Amino acid sequence: MNFTINRDLLLQNLNSVSKALSNKVQMPVLTGIKFDVFKDNILITASNGEISIQSKIVNPGQLKVQDEGSFVAPGKYLIDLVRKTEAKDIDFITYEDNSIKILADKSNFTLKGLDKENYPIISFTESPQLITIDATNLKQLIRKTTFAASISEARMILTGVYFQAKDNKMQVVATDSFRLAKKVMEFTSPLQPVEVVIPSKSLEELNKIIDENEEIVEIHFTKTKVLFKYKDLKYQTRLIDGTFPRVDAIIPTQFLTSVKFNKNDLISSIERVSIFTNIDSNIVKFALRADKTVEIASTSNEIGDAKEELNVIDCSSPMQFQIAFSSKYFLEALRSFNSSEVTINFTGEIKPFIITGEYDHNLIQLILPVRAF
Amino acid sequence: MNFTINRDLLLQNLNSVSKALSNKVQMPVLTGIKFDVFKDNILITASNGEISIQSKIVNPGQLKVQDEGSFVAPGKYLIDLVRKTEAKDIDFITYEDNSIKILADKSNFTLKGLDKENYPIISFTESPQLITIDATNLKQLIRKTTFAASISEARMILTGVYFQAKDNKMQVVATDSFRLAKKVMEFTSPLQPVEVVIPSKSLEELNKIIDENEEIVEIHFTKTKVLFKYKDLKYQTRLIDGTFPRVDAIIPTQFLTSVKFNKNDLISSIERVSIFTNIDSNIVKFALRADKTVEIASTSNEIGDAKEELNVIDCSSPMQFQIAFSSKYFLEALRSFNSSEVTINFTGEIKPFIITGEYDHNLIQLILPVRAF
Repeated sequence: MNFTINRDLLLQNLNSVSKALSNKVQMPVLTGIKFDVFKDNILITASNGEISIQSKIVNPGQLKVQDEGSFVAPGKYLIDLVRKTEAKDIDFITYEDNSIKILADKSNFTLKGLDKENYPIISFTESPQLITIDATNLKQLIRKTTFAASISEARMILTGVYFQAKDNKMQVVATDSFRLAKKVMEFTSPLQPVEVVIPSKSLEELNKIIDENEEIVEIHFTKTKVLFKYKDLKYQTRLIDGTFPRVDAIIPTQFLTSVKFNKNDLISSIERVSIFTNIDSNIVKFALRADKTVEIASTSNEIGDAKEELNVIDCSSPMQFQIAFSSKYFLEALRSFNSSEVTINFTGEIKPFIITGEYDHNLIQLILPVRAF
Repeated sequence: MNFTINRDLLLQNLNSVSKALSNKVQMPVLTGIKFDVFKDNILITASNGEISIQSKIVNPGQLKVQDEGSFVAPGKYLIDLVRKTEAKDIDFITYEDNSIKILADKSNFTLKGLDKENYPIISFTESPQLITIDATNLKQLIRKTTFAASISEARMILTGVYFQAKDNKMQVVATDSFRLAKKVMEFTSPLQPVEVVIPSKSLEELNKIIDENEEIVEIHFTKTKVLFKYKDLKYQTRLIDGTFPRVDAIIPTQFLTSVKFNKNDLISSIERVSIFTNIDSNIVKFALRADKTVEIASTSNEIGDAKEELNVIDCSSPMQFQIAFSSKYFLEALRSFNSSEVTINFTGEIKPFIITGEYDHNLIQLILPVRAF
């Protein structure tokens, strides 16, 4: 096996697949990156058992294959080496004993390869049941929902994000049972019906790899896996087994009062007032007065207390109303909006409330209040 | 106690003294910042028992004191609060129960103050035995030496940096017994004789506070402490007790051969070759050949091996010569030079060698090799 490749082209592809590299030693071969070298292209693959990523390098000008073959190189060291070389091109030559010679300018490296016979066969499964979406919209779906998934494995199903395709809508929901994020995307034609739960960590890694652009992403659904095809990249993750809770019933549609704020002013105020809250609970209190003014406040027995008056842009029904909630959940929800103005829609002092934004079509952030009065 | 102060001015001074804030709970009052408010200035002080910093705020246009007094505010929360407010000015009012009211625009904070009676009396001791140096030169002295001090407390004296003033020279030395950094600074007139060992961590924090400029720093030496006076700031640290080893005898002055390199090329090569070395030892091998070419190499049983040819600018005595050393120590030493070319002066294959740079007058970096052949 023997080929020459442009250093930047290789590094870019190594960085993409590295997101799936395992640093666990249970299966040492998964700390490696598999190279399958063909006459006019190279497939590079990494997998940690949960996520598998494969990139196809096809570039006649920047890749010259003298000899076909395959090998598994230790991922971390290979990437470090390629990153640190200043050479324009890098030569790879493999030997019978799995060793890999890497030549870059005046550098001469010999890497001990991993046994390619131990590398698992990974099938990237395409499916007739597929949905296409552009990269920017997929990134939006991920960013506006995944943060609300549970980090506790007590209820495994809640560590995932629910994707449901029905008619011409895709609905994406994440919840840790204290807050909920829901985004619906509309398509011009009916979709294949789908209902799956994707691990939130897999979606976060996917979001790092795909760029903000109009490239098409194909999402292939099978019973246990989902495969995202993006440019020359295949990104596959296992699904979470189980039934995602029905959430539509808990999202209120009728409100006691709705208060509209400048989003950035609201974020700054909450950030300041929550300086004094405890790491564990970070509860802030929100009080609307009959004269439409709003005060937010927090108290910590150890540190002191903070209160702040807030400017309200609009209030649908002025009234005396107070509610308390986690500033962390509230801030994460607020930051998911693109709109410069957001509306907080209340249903009662100890009932869930929702946040909406004028320019964030079909995005709902729901937060459960706490009893603090 | 009641005063109004410009937010940016306060934040800048809080940031300076915060370097001495303690996060240990042995003496809770030291997690606080002491304010001593006078008619036309404020002293703010922080101390962790080892380092004490005091800043004097004098600025008629940006500070208005209505009522004199003193208080101790919890440092971390106060700084967080001042950093997050967007107000131009901040009002402080204190009450009998140690509480501190802080008003900034529409924010209204009440901080529980710490008991000022518990705050230790810190004397910043000036001395007739003082040396003046400009900030840029002091920073150079610190940056080029402290990294070589020991991080192990097995020999406490080596965790410090040796400052010796004699005639018109100040000599600064740090060593962890595996490598040594020495910088001598010449003064136009004779200095008061001084010989002290300053904790390296104290110098690193000092380096963060003083800017690269021509402001004068006064260094006041007493038997157990050293005080740096810089602009309106007093920075005091305890000294390390004991006798610093005599190092001049181990610095070689006669060499077998001297090899000159482009510094950045040498750094890049060592960085690449040391990818394959172990975290613990990171040993690279250096081989000079009779034809003046140089090869550096490393071997790891687990990962593989690396070798690289290096361009030599000059070599005083071409010969067959090999030596092995820690790449970490070597890189840290190389990075302390301003010169674009550095010379490695060898005395023998298992003897210490020194690095010098044409434009780094009076700077010597010494490294002890290891036996690896």
